Amino acid sequence: MKREICTALMLEAKQEKGISFQQIADEIGRSIVWTTSAILGQNTCDAIESKKVCELLGLGIDIEKAFQQFPSKGTEAIMPPTDPLIYRLYEIVLIYGDTIKQVIHEKLGDGIMSAIDFNMQIEKEENPNGDRVKITLDGKFLPYKKW
Amino acid sequence: MKREICTALMLEAKQEKGISFQQIADEIGRSIVWTTSAILGQNTCDAIESKKVCELLGLGIDIEKAFQQFPSKGTEAIMPPTDPLIYRLYEIVLIYGDTIKQVIHEKLGDGIMSAIDFNMQIEKEENPNGDRVKITLDGKFLPYKKW
Amino acid sequence: MKREICTALMLEAKQEKGISFQQIADEIGRSIVWTTSAILGQNTCDAIESKKVCELLGLGIDIEKAFQQFPSKGTEAIMPPTDPLIYRLYEIVLIYGDTIKQVIHEKLGDGIMSAIDFNMQIEKEENPNGDRVKITLDGKFLPYKKW
Amino acid sequence: MKREICTALMLEAKQEKGISFQQIADEIGRSIVWTTSAILGQNTCDAIESKKVCELLGLGIDIEKAFQQFPSKGTEAIMPPTDPLIYRLYEIVLIYGDTIKQVIHEKLGDGIMSAIDFNMQIEKEENPNGDRVKITLDGKFLPYKKW
Amino acid sequence: MKREICTALMLEAKQEKGISFQQIADEIGRSIVWTTSAILGQNTCDAIESKKVCELLGLGIDIEKAFQQFPSKGTEAIMPPTDPLIYRLYEIVLIYGDTIKQVIHEKLGDGIMSAIDFNMQIEKEENPNGDRVKITLDGKFLPYKKW
Amino acid sequence: MKREICTALMLEAKQEKGISFQQIADEIGRSIVWTTSAILGQNTCDAIESKKVCELLGLGIDIEKAFQQFPSKGTEAIMPPTDPLIYRLYEIVLIYGDTIKQVIHEKLGDGIMSAIDFNMQIEKEENPNGDRVKITLDGKFLPYKKW
Amino acid sequence: MKREICTALMLEAKQEKGISFQQIADEIGRSIVWTTSAILGQNTCDAIESKKVCELLGLGIDIEKAFQQFPSKGTEAIMPPTDPLIYRLYEIVLIYGDTIKQVIHEKLGDGIMSAIDFNMQIEKEENPNGDRVKITLDGKFLPYKKW
Amino acid sequence: MKREICTALMLEAKQEKGISFQQIADEIGRSIVWTTSAILGQNTCDAIESKKVCELLGLGIDIEKAFQQFPSKGTEAIMPPTDPLIYRLYEIVLIYGDTIKQVIHEKLGDGIMSAIDFNMQIEKEENPNGDRVKITLDGKFLPYKKW
Amino acid sequence: MKREICTALMLEAKQEKGISFQQIADEIGRSIVWTTSAILGQNTCDAIESKKVCELLGLGIDIEKAFQQFPSKGTEAIMPPTDPLIYRLYEIVLIYGDTIKQVIHEKLGDGIMSAIDFNMQIEKEENPNGDRVKITLDGKFLPYKKW
Amino acid sequence: MKREICTALMLEAKQEKGISFQQIADEIGRSIVWTTSAILGQNTCDAIESKKVCELLGLGIDIEKAFQQFPSKGTEAIMPPTDPLIYRLYEIVLIYGDTIKQVIHEKLGDGIMSAIDFNMQIEKEENPNGDRVKITLDGKFLPYKKW
Repeated sequence: MKREICTALMLEAKQEKGISFQQIADEIGRSIVWTTSAILGQNTCDAIESKKVCELLGLGIDIEKAFQQFPSKGTEAIMPPTDPLIYRLYEIVLIYGDTIKQVIHEKLGDGIMSAIDFNMQIEKEENPNGDRVKITLDGKFLPYKKW
Repeated sequence: MKREICTALMLEAKQEKGISFQQIADEIGRSIVWTTSAILGQNTCDAIESKKVCELLGLGIDIEKAFQQFPSKGTEAIMPPTDPLIYRLYEIVLIYGDTIKQVIHEKLGDGIMSAIDFNMQIEKEENPNGDRVKITLDGKFLPYKKW
Repeated sequence: MKREICTALMLEAKQEKGISFQQIADEIGRSIVWTTSAILGQNTCDAIESKKVCELLGLGIDIEKAFQQFPSKGTEAIMPPTDPLIYRLYEIVLIYGDTIKQVIHEKLGDGIMSAIDFNMQIEKEENPNGDRVKITLDGKFLPYKKW
Repeated sequence: MKREICTALMLEAKQEKGISFQQIADEIGRSIVWTTSAILGQNTCDAIESKKVCELLGLGIDIEKAFQQFPSKGTEAIMPPTDPLIYRLYEIVLIYGDTIKQVIHEKLGDGIMSAIDFNMQIEKEENPNGDRVKITLDGKFLPYKKW
Repeated sequence: MKREICTALMLEAKQEKGISFQQIADEIGRSIVWTTSAILGQNTCDAIESKKVCELLGLGIDIEKAFQQFPSKGTEAIMPPTDPLIYRLYEIVLIYGDTIKQVIHEKLGDGIMSAIDFNMQIEKEENPNGDRVKITLDGKFLPYKKW
Repeated sequence: MKREICTALMLEAKQEKGISFQQIADEIGRSIVWTTSAILGQNTCDAIESKKVCELLGLGIDIEKAFQQFPSKGTEAIMPPTDPLIYRLYEIVLIYGDTIKQVIHEKLGDGIMSAIDFNMQIEKEENPNGDRVKITLDGKFLPYKKW
Repeated sequence: MKREICTALMLEAKQEKGISFQQIADEIGRSIVWTTSAILGQNTCDAIESKKVCELLGLGIDIEKAFQQFPSKGTEAIMPPTDPLIYRLYEIVLIYGDTIKQVIHEKLGDGIMSAIDFNMQIEKEENPNGDRVKITLDGKFLPYKKW
Repeated sequence: MKREICTALMLEAKQEKGISFQQIADEIGRSIVWTTSAILGQNTCDAIESKKVCELLGLGIDIEKAFQQFPSKGTEAIMPPTDPLIYRLYEIVLIYGDTIKQVIHEKLGDGIMSAIDFNMQIEKEENPNGDRVKITLDGKFLPYKKW
Repeated sequence: MKREICTALMLEAKQEKGISFQQIADEIGRSIVWTTSAILGQNTCDAIESKKVCELLGLGIDIEKAFQQFPSKGTEAIMPPTDPLIYRLYEIVLIYGDTIKQVIHEKLGDGIMSAIDFNMQIEKEENPNGDRVKITLDGKFLPYKKW
Repeated sequence: MKREICTALMLEAKQEKGISFQQIADEIGRSIVWTTSAILGQNTCDAIESKKVCELLGLGIDIEKAFQQFPSKGTEAIMPPTDPLIYRLYEIVLIYGDTIKQVIHEKLGDGIMSAIDFNMQIEKEENPNGDRVKITLDGKFLPYKKW
């Protein structure tokens, strides 16, 4: 079974059973962001996690196996994004990309922030002037090697 | 004077005088991220801020004025980015864009995170396994309006 | 059920029953523009609205549920548009985009017009020299925040 | 003199003299939107209008002449737009383009809204919850001809 | 029934019955160019025309209805065209587009040739040095409006 | 001298002297369309034509020589065109390209209309309902060769 | 039957029967290059050729008919090509295109080599240092017409 | 001196002195095609060839040296080509690319024709029905290696 | 059977049987890299290799035959790659492409490294600071020919 | 001084003095590949390295300083590459990208090869059948982190 079909079947089961991403995350002891990305086919569960998720969603052994495959990442993404929510993130890279580069270089020197040794949190901040979204990106600084 | 020329002259003066973005930020009482973005032509200083920055950098009245113009944003950005540091940010949108959409919808409902009523922090986290970069995006949640 | 299939089935039922977008809009007490955009998969009805629309179109519970999903927006759009009617709108952005930017900045300062906290009206204006179309875009002004 | 150079010189003079687009518009008895678009090289003034504008801005006969040329339109536009203000307009076409098509067809039949026999107003609407921008597009309906 | 399926079925029936586009055009009293474009899903027949075409092609009521829908135009076109015949037309726009602009402006002033209030003829010209194709485009001149 | 500089200097001289494309065409006994395309760098004058044009425009021997070079065609064109007048021509290829292909095949068989052994006329048609533009494309039919 | 399906069925039959393109070419008295291009949907056989090919491949009347349709050419091609063999041809145009233009202009004057009144041969040249491929393109010179 | 400036100066000198590519080729004992490609910056002359060419064109030692640099190839090419002559070559790859692949595979097996160990001839063929251009591509067959 | 379907069925069988690429490579006496590329449809096995692979995977004669077809290469690749692992390779070409060109020219002269007469090894290097990946590309140097 | 100008001046001085990349590399005790990439503006020398390189090339303090700036990487690269040498590297990613992904996953698990904590060697291998180029890529394996 291809990974994309696995993703589609999991989302369908999730919708039908009315289970939230948070519930799935709690089941396997991972954060909601990472768990959601795994279900959307961008990260990989091991055998134990896969089993728990499939039991919760009432899915069989073939999906349990397919869910452990290493996916080809990003193949479904539309760039530039058409969805307004995702476009706003893209716009931040567009408008602030060079700013982030300059500030990281000033604070840490010549290198990059890893997108692999990396984690992300998304939180709701209640605010009387309108709630806010807070996204925290936390990646290892990788200095350029010389040789 | 066009805003791009203003940007180029400010960066040249900054390099020559050996002034950091942090020093400029402290001068006007803004964060380093916002200040850097303003100098790079993505945000706008008012007359007082502009004056202080130009005095610090030893620049004249014409730059002081041009620095207050509302810029055309993002015109210099290369998308997809070729610089590895900026590409990693783009990759996060590519790989995690849909994940962020799903998690925001689950936590706050139908709407987006504003990239206008928005701020960003960039910090260095010291870590024995290698220092880390922590980027915090904090934007107002804008629910879709019906009519 | 995926949102796109939901859209296709609703349009088919609408065509078969000979119901206009205006009639559906009246049923749920929303404007024709917003209602049409919801049916085309660009906005989201709540449970009550969804029920009313599906009853009017004679559609079952699964469509009623799918119609409440938050859609991935803009995924079907062709840019630049090939259809002449939609291209003319694109051309207005192409030719007048910078003009609109300058006028908004002159009238309201540094900020944008929101496309989220936003509504639109489309009206026919009868005119002896040929009828006219009048489109009104009305969005909240979001000033750029400093930090 | 090429039209682009004419545009650049007019903007420079306008900035130096501190004249607003509204003042120029009043001088020639046109709306601010049309006048701004003409100065930005997207519409054409006749000899009388051109003279008045150049006198107001203190510009010579060569600019007065160049300002009457029919420009190549849209050559400076970036699509998709990178500036957030202009992108929001583009996004409205992206998200609502098909909706506008359906509503115009339902209200006026098979045809398009002209972007040539066309005018636009931009107004500020004061609002205690935050000011709003109101853009009105008004174009002739052109029915498709059969032959 | 979607308009594209309607197109495919009509072309299949036409091929099977060995009916030419000219015969269909004669049946409804329209030119061959307009009739062909309608069958290819770029223009719209009314109820009477639709009935006649479907009777000639031996097609049922569902196609007759679908054939009256307002299509999304140009969605199947490949640009730049890969087919040599269509590419040559594209090349004429590429090479002579600016020439046509200059000549129209010199002869009629500031405006455009409408592609909506428009008709086209295609004729074979017999010629001893090799037959020629003559395409006549005839569109209303729309002067730019000021406001 | 490069051909593009030659073009720019000729246009400048033409504007300064107030000479129309028609006058230049009459001077060398060619049509206005072909003459305009030659001046815009898309066709080539021979030595005699070149001499006449340069005398009329008051230009020297170096331009006279450069004007006889075979140009690299189409290098300045923007595709898809941003100028509304040129876009409408592009739209005709987009919307009617396949129609033209079908009609030529039905009338002349398998082959193309040449864009090289080719001429074009542009005329103003006065009309009480608004003047019209008539563009006639006349190209040799080239049947596909078998071997 | 659509031309693409016809192509697919012919290739399948050819593979199954183990017939070479050369054998098909010999059957209809055409070169291997032209015959291969016809089977791949880029050229058109007449009724007699079509019959012979279909008999050789053991295919029925519907394919025989579909094989006589005038195809939409080049629709399956990927540009720039990803296959190394086809990319090398593309690279020759990329690297030597302007060279070929200059040499043809020096040898034959202002015009082009037709890709319609055109034939191509492909031969294997045995060579002790490694065999070579020899491709000969032979097209009519079409001088640009003036009018 | 950059290689592009070297190319521009050589073409200028060639035009001024009225020397043909054939004459330059004869001077260094190379074919006209290869010599033209070297002058256009796509191949490299050695010291002796470079000296001869520069003497013929009356150019100095700095150009003689720059002419021996290994160029970055293809950087000036426009793809897809806009010039009709070069486009026809591109079209041959577009339409016949897969045909050439199939015929080479049938005649020589799995491999490619080299565009490096490669030569090309361009000849004029006089013909009473119109002269023809004959281009011969001759490249080494490189079989795919297994390992 | 099309080559892509052959690839899909082989991957499915491989997954089901739990066979590694290394085991398949050992079975036919080829390297793991080449064998993997053949299974992914980028290289071609001969009859004997094909038989062995299909027996190992328990696949029938039709797949055995299809596996010997010469594939159209690279058709499934996404460029720029979205998968982070493949993007890093693309980035190396982006960032170091010109460096590699300069170093090869300095060490071997004017020519290229073949991607056809070519092999690649991929090895894991254990390292206490974190394991490393070592990729070795080994291609024939092809000097540019003159003629 | 901008980094691109610094690069251009260093290459000019290098060419004039006849110094090889290897000599510069030896001067600073780095490999030829890394040193070349630094001069081409893709990596950064520290103050001591910069001083040595500038002394060797006879360049002043302003270049010495500019050479220590962190560059925007990859901004000059053309993708897909037009130069045949660089294209062959791109082609390897195109054809073998997925193969490399599969083999790395089979040998090291879910993760990527870093392009930052990375080095590259380029060597000439003498070979009686034609010299070969050997490129070794050696990057840290970064396993995907879960959180």
